Amino acid sequence: MNANPEFFASNAHVDAAAIEPLPNSRKVYVEGSRPDVRVPMREISQADTPTHFGGETNPPIYVYDCSGPYSDPTVKIDIREGLPGLRTKWIEERGDSEVLSGLTSEYGRSRANMENLARLRFPGLHRKPRRAKPGMNVSQMHYARRGIITPEMEYIAIRENLRRQEYLESLRRSGPQGERLAKALTRQHPGQNFGAALPEEITAEFVRAEVARGRAIIPANINHPETEPMIIGRNFLVKINANIGNSALGSSINEEVDKMTWAIRWGGDTVMDLSTGKNIHETREWIIRNSPVPIGTVPIYQALEKVDGKAEELTWEMFRDTLIEQAEQGVDYFTIHAGVLLRYIPMTAERMTGIVSRGGSIMAKWCLAHHKESFLYTHFEEICEIMKAYDVAFSLGDGLRPGSIYDANDEAQLAELKTLGELTQIAWKHDCQVMIEGPGHVPMQLIKENMDKELEWCDEAPFYTLGPLTTDIAPGYDHITSGIGAAMIGWYGTAMLCYVTPKEHLGLPDKNDVKEGIITYKLAAHAADLAKGHPGAQIRDNALSKARFEFRWDDQFNLGLDPDKAREFHDETLPKESAKVAHFCSMCGPHFCSMKITQDVRDFAAKQGISEADALEKGMEVKSVEFVKTGAEVYHKV
Amino acid sequence: MNANPEFFASNAHVDAAAIEPLPNSRKVYVEGSRPDVRVPMREISQADTPTHFGGETNPPIYVYDCSGPYSDPTVKIDIREGLPGLRTKWIEERGDSEVLSGLTSEYGRSRANMENLARLRFPGLHRKPRRAKPGMNVSQMHYARRGIITPEMEYIAIRENLRRQEYLESLRRSGPQGERLAKALTRQHPGQNFGAALPEEITAEFVRAEVARGRAIIPANINHPETEPMIIGRNFLVKINANIGNSALGSSINEEVDKMTWAIRWGGDTVMDLSTGKNIHETREWIIRNSPVPIGTVPIYQALEKVDGKAEELTWEMFRDTLIEQAEQGVDYFTIHAGVLLRYIPMTAERMTGIVSRGGSIMAKWCLAHHKESFLYTHFEEICEIMKAYDVAFSLGDGLRPGSIYDANDEAQLAELKTLGELTQIAWKHDCQVMIEGPGHVPMQLIKENMDKELEWCDEAPFYTLGPLTTDIAPGYDHITSGIGAAMIGWYGTAMLCYVTPKEHLGLPDKNDVKEGIITYKLAAHAADLAKGHPGAQIRDNALSKARFEFRWDDQFNLGLDPDKAREFHDETLPKESAKVAHFCSMCGPHFCSMKITQDVRDFAAKQGISEADALEKGMEVKSVEFVKTGAEVYHKV
Repeated sequence: MNANPEFFASNAHVDAAAIEPLPNSRKVYVEGSRPDVRVPMREISQADTPTHFGGETNPPIYVYDCSGPYSDPTVKIDIREGLPGLRTKWIEERGDSEVLSGLTSEYGRSRANMENLARLRFPGLHRKPRRAKPGMNVSQMHYARRGIITPEMEYIAIRENLRRQEYLESLRRSGPQGERLAKALTRQHPGQNFGAALPEEITAEFVRAEVARGRAIIPANINHPETEPMIIGRNFLVKINANIGNSALGSSINEEVDKMTWAIRWGGDTVMDLSTGKNIHETREWIIRNSPVPIGTVPIYQALEKVDGKAEELTWEMFRDTLIEQAEQGVDYFTIHAGVLLRYIPMTAERMTGIVSRGGSIMAKWCLAHHKESFLYTHFEEICEIMKAYDVAFSLGDGLRPGSIYDANDEAQLAELKTLGELTQIAWKHDCQVMIEGPGHVPMQLIKENMDKELEWCDEAPFYTLGPLTTDIAPGYDHITSGIGAAMIGWYGTAMLCYVTPKEHLGLPDKNDVKEGIITYKLAAHAADLAKGHPGAQIRDNALSKARFEFRWDDQFNLGLDPDKAREFHDETLPKESAKVAHFCSMCGPHFCSMKITQDVRDFAAKQGISEADALEKGMEVKSVEFVKTGAEVYHKV
Repeated sequence: MNANPEFFASNAHVDAAAIEPLPNSRKVYVEGSRPDVRVPMREISQADTPTHFGGETNPPIYVYDCSGPYSDPTVKIDIREGLPGLRTKWIEERGDSEVLSGLTSEYGRSRANMENLARLRFPGLHRKPRRAKPGMNVSQMHYARRGIITPEMEYIAIRENLRRQEYLESLRRSGPQGERLAKALTRQHPGQNFGAALPEEITAEFVRAEVARGRAIIPANINHPETEPMIIGRNFLVKINANIGNSALGSSINEEVDKMTWAIRWGGDTVMDLSTGKNIHETREWIIRNSPVPIGTVPIYQALEKVDGKAEELTWEMFRDTLIEQAEQGVDYFTIHAGVLLRYIPMTAERMTGIVSRGGSIMAKWCLAHHKESFLYTHFEEICEIMKAYDVAFSLGDGLRPGSIYDANDEAQLAELKTLGELTQIAWKHDCQVMIEGPGHVPMQLIKENMDKELEWCDEAPFYTLGPLTTDIAPGYDHITSGIGAAMIGWYGTAMLCYVTPKEHLGLPDKNDVKEGIITYKLAAHAADLAKGHPGAQIRDNALSKARFEFRWDDQFNLGLDPDKAREFHDETLPKESAKVAHFCSMCGPHFCSMKITQDVRDFAAKQGISEADALEKGMEVKSVEFVKTGAEVYHKV
C-alpha cells in the first residue's frame, strides 16, 4: 500500500526529473504571424558524419514537443505559481467572453470556502473564471464555422509542420551532396490512408476547415489559457493521451502532478485526470494550472464521489454543477457517457465481462434504478450549452465498450456507437467540438470494422480509442497487447490513442508505468503516421537509421523516443565513451558487424572513383582482386 | 563489460529459476497410439466461481508447453547429463539411418581431441552420431511424401489440439449450466485467414499432408532425439523463436544454457544459437543436449570464426565441414543465405543502412572479393544432400533484408526473395524441409506485400520473420515496435516469428531481455492466432476474462503468459492475500469497480427470477424501485 506522505501546498515542488534537459536538445520557438504565436519544438542536434563515411553535416531534426516550459531552461518553474497563460490575450481579444465575479458552481464555491483545505489548495491562481457572454459561443468550432482563423489554429498549423521545409533547406545547404541527401532523408514510402486527406503542408486555413467540418477538434477551454494549442483529427499527426489520477487506495496530489509532468516530457499530447480518490477538486486544480497540454476528465467520477458512490442518487442538477465546477477550472474535454441507453443494457447480459467502463456501469446502474434514460442523454442539449460557454470539447464515452475479446464488436457496443453518432450531430448543431471514444478489447481482424463504422456513423468525428487490446492473456504486458491494436487503428484513421500501461487490470500506474505506456503509444502513433503516409513522418526514422549506419551512437540514442534507456542498454555492456564511436556493439562484437562490412564494400567502390553499382555492373573481376589486396577487413581510418 | 566467470563442466548446473513450478500448473502427458507418444501440456487449474457469481466449477485449461522436462517435478534435471532421447526409438525403428563410428567432420574431430577443452566439454554424450544410410533420406518431408505418418507427426497433431475436446466435455459436465458454459467458453469470433486452411481438428494425416506439401516443417535432426516434435506452418499455431548466443564481448556457456531454459519456460518454440564468440562448438553441444525444442544456427558465423573473420577466405570445403559438424551435433535447422547473388549487391548501394544481415554481409563480401556467386548458391544441391542425410531443415536466410524503414520492400530484398523461392523448389526436389526468412524493418502498410509475395514466390513454404519493426525511432523498445509488425504478419500467414528483445540495436540480450522478448512475441503470436480464427485460440482469453470478471485474481494471474509479473504488479499496491478475492483493485478502488457494478445489476435480475434481458424488456419500473430498496450498492455476500 502506498505511503502517501501528507501533501502541503507550501512545499510542493516540481519533479526534478521532469525539467532535466534532454541530451543534445534545445527548445526552439517558431514565430507565427504575430509575436505571441511562438510555437515550441525540440531541436535535436547531430554530430557530423565521420569523414570515412562521407563527412556530411547533419542538420538538426525538429520533433513535436509536448513538454511545455518544463524543458525550457530559461523558464523558472514553480508549480505553486503555475504556468503563464499564453492564450490569455487571444481569449480576451475575441471579446466574446467575460470574467465572472467568482466561481458559479456550488461545489466549487464550497470547496473554496473550506478552511481545512487551505494547506493543500493550489496557491497560484489569481484570476477569476471566464465564461462566454450571454448568447455567445466561444468554441473553436464556432469560430471555424464563421471562417475565423484563430491564433490557436495558426499555432497548430506551424506545430504540425515541424519545420519540415527548413530541414529540407538545411540539408540542401549541407555540402556538395546536399541535393542528394535532401532527397534521400525526406523520402518516404507512399502511405495507405483509407480515405484520410493529408495535405503536403498544413495551413492555418486547413486547420480551420477541418475543425469547421468536425473532423478535428482543438481542446482549449478558455479557463485553461496555459495550454499550448494542439489538434486531434485523422488528417493530423496521431496523438496520444495519458491517464493519471489517484484512487481511494493511493497517490497524493504531488504524485499526480509529477505523473503529468513526466507524461508530457515523454510525449503525452493530452492528459486525463481520472481521480476517484480524495480531494479530486484540488488535485485537478494543481494539474490544470501546471499543464501545457489539454486536460480531460470524466465528470461522472467526481459526481459519484459527491453522492458517496451511490449511483442511483446522481441527479442532473448535481451533475450540471460538476460540469460547471470543472469547466471553470479549465478542463478541456469531458468524457460524457450519454450513449448508454436503457434498451442497450440488456444487450450486455450475455457478455463475458459485462460493462467494464466505469462511467458506463455507473450510468447503467442509474438507468436501471430509475428505469429511464440517463440525464446525460435527456439533458444533452443543456450540456452542449455549458460546453460552448467555456469551449469544453465532448469526448463521447463508450460506456459499453468490450472488456474482453469475447465481447468485441457486439450488439451493445455497436448500438451505443450509433447513438454517439446521433449525439454528434446534436453537438455540432451547437458548434460544440466532439470526439468519440472507442474500445477496448478487440481481436485484430475486428479492429477495422470499429474504425469504419465510427467514420460512417459519426461522420468522421475524431475517434479516440483505448488500445484496443488484441488479446486478453497478457496481464502485465497490456501496454504491448494494446499497442498492437493502437498502431493498427491509428493507421485506419483513429485520431488519438489512449495509452494503456503495464499495470492495466492490475493496479494504479506509477511514474515508471506512465513512461512505459507513453513510449509504447508514441511508437504506435508514429507507426500509424508512417503507414498513413503522413508527410514528413519518416524524417526521424531516416535520420536515426543514418546515424545507426554511421555508428553515431549518441545521435542514435538522442533521436530515439527514449534516449536515456537506449544509452543505458548500450552501456550495460560497453560503458566507455570510446564505445560511442566504435564500429560495433556487444551484439555481434567487432568482427561481425554487418554495417561495418557494408561500409567496407562501399569504401572499396569509392576508392575506385565509381559508384558501387557501377563498380559491379562494369565487371569487377580485376577490381575484386584489388579489393582483397587492399585488405578487405581493414576499416579505413580517417 | 560482462565478468564471465570461467566455466567448468564439472560444476555446471541448471538455473534454479527454470525448474520452479508455475503456479497452479501441472505437467500432463497425453498418450497417442503408442505408449512412447506422450505429449506434454501444461494444465492450469482454476478455482470455482464464487457462489454469488453462479458457483460453477471451472475445469482446468490446457496450454501449449515448450518447457520440456524442466517443468516436470518428477524428472531430475542434470544439465551435465542432458535430456533423455525421446525420439531415439522412432529414429532407430525407421531403419534408414546408421550409427557412425565417430564424428565425420574434421573440425568436430579436432575439437574432440583438444585436451584443454576437456574442462568445458559437455560430459553427458555417450552416443555416436547418426546419418542416413547411403542413398536414404531421413527427412520428415520424405516420409510424408511417401505417405508415412511418423510418430513425430502424431505427436504434433495431439499437441496442436491442446485437449480442446476434453475441455469442452469437462465444461459440459461441470454443472447445470454446463451446456451453456461449454458453448460460451469455447466460442470465438470468425477469423480472417487470408487463404489459410485451418481444420477444426488437427489430425496426424493433416500434419503429414502439410509437410508433404511443403507448407509446414518439422525441424527434427536425427542427432537431436531430445526434441519434442513441433511444427511450423501457416495452418498450425503461430510459433516463436528466441535467439541466444554469445559474442566476442560477452556471456559464458552456462549463461547461454540458462537463456535457453529460460526461453523455453516462457514459451520459446525454437531457439537459435547465434554464438559468434569463443567455444562455439562446445557451447552448442551443451545447448542441444539440454534442449527439448529444435535448435537453429547460422553456420556461416562459425565458419567465419574459423577463418579469423576474413570473409573472403571462406571456402565451400570448410563450410561443408561446418555443416556436417553441426548436423552431427543435432542442429535442427540451418540459416543458409544462398539468395545473396552477385547481381543483387549493387541494389543495396543506395540503401540507408546497406546490408544488415550478418550472414548477408559476409556473403556479399565474399561474392565481391571473388566476383562470383557464393558457394551457398553454387553448391546448393550438395547442401541438400547433407540436409537430408540428417534431416536438417533449411531456413533460407534473407541476407538482404531491410535494416531501416527506408529500405523496406526494395529491389534488393524482393529480388532475393524470388531467388529463395527458386531454391525452395530445388530443396523440395530433394524432399528437404524449407522455411523462408523475412524482414526486418517494414512500415505497417508494406507488411502485407511481404507476406503475399512470399506465399506466391515461395509456394507457401513457411515464412519465418524477424518482427518486422514498424518504426526505427524506438531503440530500447524494439520488442514492441517489432511486436506490432509480428502480430500483423502472423495474422497474414507467417508461421514463426523470430523475437526481438529490448536490447535490439544496442547490446547482447540478458536473461531479462530474453523473457521480455518471449512474452511480447507470445502475445503477438496469440493475437495472430485469434485473428486468423485458429480453432480454440480464444479458449484461454475466455477463461482469463471470466476469471477477471469473477475477481478470481489468482486465476487471472495464472492463466496469463507471465503469472509472476501479473502478481507482482497487483501486489505492489495490494499485497495481502485477502486482496486476491477482493472485488476491486487499486486502479479504481472499492467504490468504482465497473465489474462489481455490472454484477450488482445481474444479481438484481437473478433475484427476480428472470434474466436480466427479460427484466428490462418486460418493463422494470416496479422492479427498479425494489432494486433501489434492496440497496443497489450492497454486494450480496455468500
